[in-house]
Amino acid sequence: MSQVSNSHRPVLLVKSGGVDAVAEWQKNFGEFAPDVEVRWWNDPGIDPLAVEYVLVWQPEAGRIAGYPNLKAVISSAAGVDHILADPRLPATVPIIRMVTDDTVQRMAEFTAMSSLMLLKDMPRMIAQQARREWSEFATPRTAVETRVGIMGLGALGLACAQMHAQLGFITAGWARSPRKAERIECYAGEDQLGAFLARTNILICLLPDTEDTRDIINADLLRQLPAGAAIINVGRGTHVHTEDLLAALDSGHVSSALLDVFAVEPLPDDSPLWNHPRIIVTPHGAATPSRRERARQAATVIHAVENGLPAPHLYDRERGY
Amino acid sequence: MSQVSNSHRPVLLVKSGGVDAVAEWQKNFGEFAPDVEVRWWNDPGIDPLAVEYVLVWQPEAGRIAGYPNLKAVISSAAGVDHILADPRLPATVPIIRMVTDDTVQRMAEFTAMSSLMLLKDMPRMIAQQARREWSEFATPRTAVETRVGIMGLGALGLACAQMHAQLGFITAGWARSPRKAERIECYAGEDQLGAFLARTNILICLLPDTEDTRDIINADLLRQLPAGAAIINVGRGTHVHTEDLLAALDSGHVSSALLDVFAVEPLPDDSPLWNHPRIIVTPHGAATPSRRERARQAATVIHAVENGLPAPHLYDRERGY
Repeated sequence: MSQVSNSHRPVLLVKSGGVDAVAEWQKNFGEFAPDVEVRWWNDPGIDPLAVEYVLVWQPEAGRIAGYPNLKAVISSAAGVDHILADPRLPATVPIIRMVTDDTVQRMAEFTAMSSLMLLKDMPRMIAQQARREWSEFATPRTAVETRVGIMGLGALGLACAQMHAQLGFITAGWARSPRKAERIECYAGEDQLGAFLARTNILICLLPDTEDTRDIINADLLRQLPAGAAIINVGRGTHVHTEDLLAALDSGHVSSALLDVFAVEPLPDDSPLWNHPRIIVTPHGAATPSRRERARQAATVIHAVENGLPAPHLYDRERGY
Repeated sequence: MSQVSNSHRPVLLVKSGGVDAVAEWQKNFGEFAPDVEVRWWNDPGIDPLAVEYVLVWQPEAGRIAGYPNLKAVISSAAGVDHILADPRLPATVPIIRMVTDDTVQRMAEFTAMSSLMLLKDMPRMIAQQARREWSEFATPRTAVETRVGIMGLGALGLACAQMHAQLGFITAGWARSPRKAERIECYAGEDQLGAFLARTNILICLLPDTEDTRDIINADLLRQLPAGAAIINVGRGTHVHTEDLLAALDSGHVSSALLDVFAVEPLPDDSPLWNHPRIIVTPHGAATPSRRERARQAATVIHAVENGLPAPHLYDRERGY
């Protein structure tokens, strides 16, 4: 791995996971960038002029503008909206997106787990355990008799589809424009959405967040699924019309759901999703990389900048991604 | 499919799932054996002389002896102990084990789900959901960085190992005697048990029930696993020494467990396993076939007997299996 020069020891401030996480960040950067000095975001002994990098999640407005020698703002997780929300953000400081190598593997694993959990009716098992109830039951189908349909066939969607096919699921995908993939039946566009839905027992949403996809999982879409279908949302919270999903669950037309993303996060205390017996709620962690993996990625960025090379995953303010 | 002769309509009594399940059994046999008359075990209108087949789970002592024209007793689930327990069981009536084609697929799917659930720390997510707590977290490893070890390399164990390897897990197996399997690192015998345990992050028990394997998952074995290992038991309940497992969980040496089988079933109300935050309890359903699959298998047995052919999966009273 390339090294930072011996004479210079850049300071990196970390705001991710709170003060309790600082020791872990220091250990991880010690592995991948031992020449970087890692300090807590609110460390009172920091000289603002010495700060050259920040690794942040939701930095307080105005804080970044206070570091005149900043070379890069590295986002600690997916998305940079939480950085752009700062009205006093300097217009030219490079912003780096967090993209790790293991995101695709993590998402494929999480969706495979979710499909198996709904296939095996884990919501029922979880509810039974909570009330100490022993009721044996058999689920009606195996994976090889079950049709999984994945909405969104980007890099993540394709990897999820392949892992499902390897488990034996009869796997299809749907995207805006035609795709081809080995062992995956591909549907495209509005015209083929109905046929895609009609054959799908487990629907996985991995669509991007656009105007067209907002509330796409609504009563009209759910009605087109066969009775007893299950829903997995790992795309964006805005993809699911919550009231329509709840109505479909309560009527029995939809059997169960696993939701990892929500229109409002953290999911509010009074949300009816929390204690619905047919819904599993997970806290937006489907593809969250480990701190070690994020430190490895941030180290790569710092080494590139220190060596005068282009920083990977630089956010483009013009294009908006 | 071969048919029962047109002139003869054998009566099958069903005791499996209670009276509520009879309509479903009738529908399923209607698909695979439309010439068989399916009746409820406690139907008051039954002529005992007309009963030629029974499909049973835990028949009451003495009941089977009351059907003099019985051609076969078909077990409704794995094992025949629940039939042999009847002291008045006729000595010569054929007993048929329930072995379905989808058992292997179901077990592989269930263990893959279980490993992914423990890898992703679903016990934490389930506990958080129960108290409406939103705490995002990242798990330390992906499947491709995780070592799964399967104890027991029979047909079930091998299928589980292959499915884990396909998901990316670094997969090994351990058996009494040496085995070979593509992509699976195979360990054998007492001599290699320590090395197998030392490299295993997720241990899956699929051993048979013998004197040697009773309480095999005890303090001494658990100590040989790396810190933070997880345990999955889908073998027999007697394989796990419950107090030792609880101690290892409470010390943090073992991170979590998913248990599908128990020394006493149903799991007693006052068992500390029910509400342990790091344990998922499932009601002995890892590989339970659907009623449709069992009806298909029972229909095959009836057709064989009716046509004078050998019944598949006949229990051998001499050998004991």
